[in-house]
Amino acid sequence: MTMVNRQVRLAARPVGDPKPADWSYTDGPVEDPAEGEFVVEVEFVSLDPAMRGWMDDRPSYLPPVGLGEVMRSAGAGRVIASRHPDFAEGDAVTGSFGVQRYAHSDGQGVVRVDLSRAPLKTHLGALGMTGMTAYFGLLDVGRAGSGDVVVVSGAAGAVGSVAGQIARIKGCHVIGIAGGERKCRWIVDELGFDAAIDYKRGDVASALRKEAGVDVFFDNVGGEVLDAVLQRLSQRARVVLCGGISQYNQAGPSHGPSNYLSLVVRRARMEGFIVFDYAARYGEAASEMAGWILDGRLRTREQIVSGGLKAFPEALGMLFRGENTGKLLLEIGDD
Amino acid sequence: MTMVNRQVRLAARPVGDPKPADWSYTDGPVEDPAEGEFVVEVEFVSLDPAMRGWMDDRPSYLPPVGLGEVMRSAGAGRVIASRHPDFAEGDAVTGSFGVQRYAHSDGQGVVRVDLSRAPLKTHLGALGMTGMTAYFGLLDVGRAGSGDVVVVSGAAGAVGSVAGQIARIKGCHVIGIAGGERKCRWIVDELGFDAAIDYKRGDVASALRKEAGVDVFFDNVGGEVLDAVLQRLSQRARVVLCGGISQYNQAGPSHGPSNYLSLVVRRARMEGFIVFDYAARYGEAASEMAGWILDGRLRTREQIVSGGLKAFPEALGMLFRGENTGKLLLEIGDD
Repeated sequence: MTMVNRQVRLAARPVGDPKPADWSYTDGPVEDPAEGEFVVEVEFVSLDPAMRGWMDDRPSYLPPVGLGEVMRSAGAGRVIASRHPDFAEGDAVTGSFGVQRYAHSDGQGVVRVDLSRAPLKTHLGALGMTGMTAYFGLLDVGRAGSGDVVVVSGAAGAVGSVAGQIARIKGCHVIGIAGGERKCRWIVDELGFDAAIDYKRGDVASALRKEAGVDVFFDNVGGEVLDAVLQRLSQRARVVLCGGISQYNQAGPSHGPSNYLSLVVRRARMEGFIVFDYAARYGEAASEMAGWILDGRLRTREQIVSGGLKAFPEALGMLFRGENTGKLLLEIGDD
Repeated sequence: MTMVNRQVRLAARPVGDPKPADWSYTDGPVEDPAEGEFVVEVEFVSLDPAMRGWMDDRPSYLPPVGLGEVMRSAGAGRVIASRHPDFAEGDAVTGSFGVQRYAHSDGQGVVRVDLSRAPLKTHLGALGMTGMTAYFGLLDVGRAGSGDVVVVSGAAGAVGSVAGQIARIKGCHVIGIAGGERKCRWIVDELGFDAAIDYKRGDVASALRKEAGVDVFFDNVGGEVLDAVLQRLSQRARVVLCGGISQYNQAGPSHGPSNYLSLVVRRARMEGFIVFDYAARYGEAASEMAGWILDGRLRTREQIVSGGLKAFPEALGMLFRGENTGKLLLEIGDD
């Protein structure tokens, strides 16, 4: 091959918000796949809050991205050359391909996706890690069931918008917390949430006072939103810690939930999870979700940022500024 | 009857630490029991961190103690007059008798105790609510089992000292966190904890670095101790929220655990409980605990404050200043 691979690498560890200078760009040749490998042409890079954690030099569920390394990310694309028995040229795939135009893979963690179910981009959203996170977080960790009052923060985001819809499908009363009137209207009018609370316009705890106690809180945000919902838990409530995007760019310590002792009074629990632990059950979830998409009960939205790899820092910033609605993806054209 | 009942009443809602002026004292006649009632002469009043919460005008798992009402407390004593079919004069009993010399009761929540198992005071400690809290918190909420690394805060306190010993009996590796060298020596030398960390002398997170990850954290303290242990959780760890004594006298918001997002990375949970929910299983637990006491594996200690009811405010203060070792009781003599 004589194609050129463009890559985005972590140049410096950010303090607080990532800056343009935290990234470097390299161009290099695309090597032929070795025996047992294949090469993917990446079409979409997934932008996920978890990426911020991978940029810090801290032990976590995955090792930090090393300085000078290609930034880790989920992505979707096509196999363009293969010496791997299970992947053929032309296969549509998702996997942890990194922020680059071409990725080599030995197949680990790579999923061949079925484009008759949904377009490629949706396999990074509702049918990908995003959807799996919503599904297992809500149903397995949160044990949401019919009649439960479910509150979702980051409700217009990739995971939150799916989690809220799954809760509705399962017969829950669903309240979404989001920033801004447009997002709030979207989750109620288009996605069928029962109610929305605009955290930018008022006090979340007061707004929740109109509702019965919260049985399940699916939290993507943390900070003051978490503190507010902790005041409104019902008995034996489940707080599902999916993430805490409000805290990821904090240079100092996180804002810990001052109202955590309400977990005692309410005999409630707060529990974290990592979607990778459910890998053995992705198939089961994806089938159910694909059915909901086909029959129109689960709506998916991807927001595509164009501009190629050089737009990556800006796209990542949009995520942390809450500028996306639904799943945020970077489309890699020919830069 | 012509006996005089002395009672301690809540005169004002404390801001921060309770002050002497928050209490008033009244004397009144002891009425004869009505049909279906009995009268208890209280010998010991139990001092429990939960009492601080009952003094605030905030909805909780029990209604607040009203201003002017006799302060709620657990206690132990003897039935001195009865018109109740299940309780006879001379019975030794524990129950929620309040901070007073004589209590009327219809029997609700009152337990007849067996003094051949242990002396009366121990039925407020290891064989009472305190022991039940340790037992169900550790084993049911925390699911501690053989080989687990268990950390207990407030480890020289009433609940913590029992929780740590149960963990040891169940084959766990047990580390206690306590304040001061004397308490630390007691839990290791007398109670058989594997190690102790003196939080007044050093950094708890650093001290825990010597140990394997924490599988179960039984937390009575909250605040910085909780934050430290959250840094050292193992995968799927259980943080049992028994209480947060460091936070109860805070006039402002509690210190929320800044490191709560480690629950995500570690797929861990933090769960609160109220011992009253286990009432149906107290008998089972008390039998097992009584066996351990008899065969010497579970050591109990009660620290008795004398001076009668007028010493109540001071005794309560001792609890929040961490001046007790084991179960703190106020003995009501004849004032």
